[in-house]
Amino acid sequence: MRKYVGIDLGGTNIAAGVVTEKGNMISQAEMPTRAERPWQPVVDDIAITAFMAIENAGLTIKDIEAFGMGVPGICVDGVIPFCTNLGWHDVPINEAWTKYTDKPLYVDNDANCAGVAESISGVSASVPDSVFLTLGTGLGGGIIVSNKPQNGSHGVGGELGHMTIVVDGEMCTCGKRGCFERYAAATGMIRMGVDAMRAHPDSALYAAAFGDPSRMTAKIVTDSARAGDPVAMKVFDDYIKYLSIGINSIISFIDPSMIVLGGGVSRAGAFLLNKVRAKLPEYIFYKTLPYADIELARLGNEAGIIGAALLGRE
Amino acid sequence: MRKYVGIDLGGTNIAAGVVTEKGNMISQAEMPTRAERPWQPVVDDIAITAFMAIENAGLTIKDIEAFGMGVPGICVDGVIPFCTNLGWHDVPINEAWTKYTDKPLYVDNDANCAGVAESISGVSASVPDSVFLTLGTGLGGGIIVSNKPQNGSHGVGGELGHMTIVVDGEMCTCGKRGCFERYAAATGMIRMGVDAMRAHPDSALYAAAFGDPSRMTAKIVTDSARAGDPVAMKVFDDYIKYLSIGINSIISFIDPSMIVLGGGVSRAGAFLLNKVRAKLPEYIFYKTLPYADIELARLGNEAGIIGAALLGRE
Repeated sequence: MRKYVGIDLGGTNIAAGVVTEKGNMISQAEMPTRAERPWQPVVDDIAITAFMAIENAGLTIKDIEAFGMGVPGICVDGVIPFCTNLGWHDVPINEAWTKYTDKPLYVDNDANCAGVAESISGVSASVPDSVFLTLGTGLGGGIIVSNKPQNGSHGVGGELGHMTIVVDGEMCTCGKRGCFERYAAATGMIRMGVDAMRAHPDSALYAAAFGDPSRMTAKIVTDSARAGDPVAMKVFDDYIKYLSIGINSIISFIDPSMIVLGGGVSRAGAFLLNKVRAKLPEYIFYKTLPYADIELARLGNEAGIIGAALLGRE
Repeated sequence: MRKYVGIDLGGTNIAAGVVTEKGNMISQAEMPTRAERPWQPVVDDIAITAFMAIENAGLTIKDIEAFGMGVPGICVDGVIPFCTNLGWHDVPINEAWTKYTDKPLYVDNDANCAGVAESISGVSASVPDSVFLTLGTGLGGGIIVSNKPQNGSHGVGGELGHMTIVVDGEMCTCGKRGCFERYAAATGMIRMGVDAMRAHPDSALYAAAFGDPSRMTAKIVTDSARAGDPVAMKVFDDYIKYLSIGINSIISFIDPSMIVLGGGVSRAGAFLLNKVRAKLPEYIFYKTLPYADIELARLGNEAGIIGAALLGRE
């Protein structure tokens, strides 16, 4: 069976694994990214992590067909134009890779990679097309058709977090205002949680974060809402409203078979999913017709590695 | 050369024409829709208009391969679930059509039809994929790939006018708030024009509409802005801002090769196009990378008929 190496490059860690052509991971390796360094030593460590994963599988590079890597950004013509989380600008990743091996490296957006993995061996394996949303620090999008990411004509598509949902709204890290990401990423829930905590110092939400904005997390909001704190419930419901509005825009736009929710916020599980499914019909345009199934991601943190590995499968 | 009949069903008129397989229209016919009637007599008149067009071309139905019709709505499995402008609900158009002829009738959204026509013999003929926007009473969208409309998995996609761009914004005819259509259709410009006129009774915009909200049109706003009236210029610039924000969402989402602006507002021509092209870079995510060309539609009112006719070409 053919084997591939997948790499998930994050702002905190580099994770790599050897993955079979069927999407099973047979080994793993990890190393801190230390993103404050210049990109060259980071790429050295990416290669080392990948080779460690091969060794951990009891294999050598001759056993590997190709490498794939998911990055929190995009790659156009072998160059990563920028990754905010890594401080990278115009990194010629494919040229740099030739220093380590002549086996090819395929690079794509990390949400695309997770979406590919789910479409091959996860929740969306049963449908021909899907949209994957990572509800994490940012909000990444992957439009997947026939197991392949759709990046558009110039490679700049799938940036679903940067659709505008509130003209003149919250300032985004991208320099625009009112991006979907500012409201429906984990950071959106945290911002709304901090605002609510400040307004309600007698709330369970306040107590759970010790009144300290820097301690607020999406998990605290979710757990407090699930426990019935009315202040946290209001924040969570507002979050659900924004997420549902953005999901409806995805449906009105490309009407996928399925929309898959992944990333940190999706760990809220059925509590999140049931509320989104209940809220969404308010915003649906053709109310009597079928529309996309909304589902939770199934592969967890491994999706990024598996999907990256399988980029090279064709 | 094969010939097709295209029908453009609007709230005001039914227009039909015989179109060659190359996209040339060789005859035309027209009749008022009188949409206040039940749908059955309207469909009778659609068939009569189509047959008039055939006769005007000196042909008979034996010379026609297929019929195609663009409607201000969608058609799923031969049924039009609803058309607000026509008051139609669940009209079984394909079944009804068998009363008139056994030649097939293909039905699709009117913006899709115009987009197909532009992609075959208009401005987007040079590119593999495009998004067509009708800036008219409503805001219709057509996602066109390889000359074919992309309606999604359940046939409810391409409704670009109903992406939310302002959460809790203006109420839309669809029952939601803050839809792109409410800001970037001609009716959006008219609403903003009326508000500005009321606030500035000494403006040229006020004089051009005789201070009468019912006389305000997108053409009055555009002409007054072009003539230099500061009040109208502000309205037009606000309109450009909303339109550019929505266009950026389209780019961030599916990154098409080209976005084509059609419909009534697009008659403002270079005055509109140059302002959109100048404003858009403010909202673009990957500022150093190429993105979609923004162009004006070229085929005018005939695009709807030509595109509808060519739906049956495959």
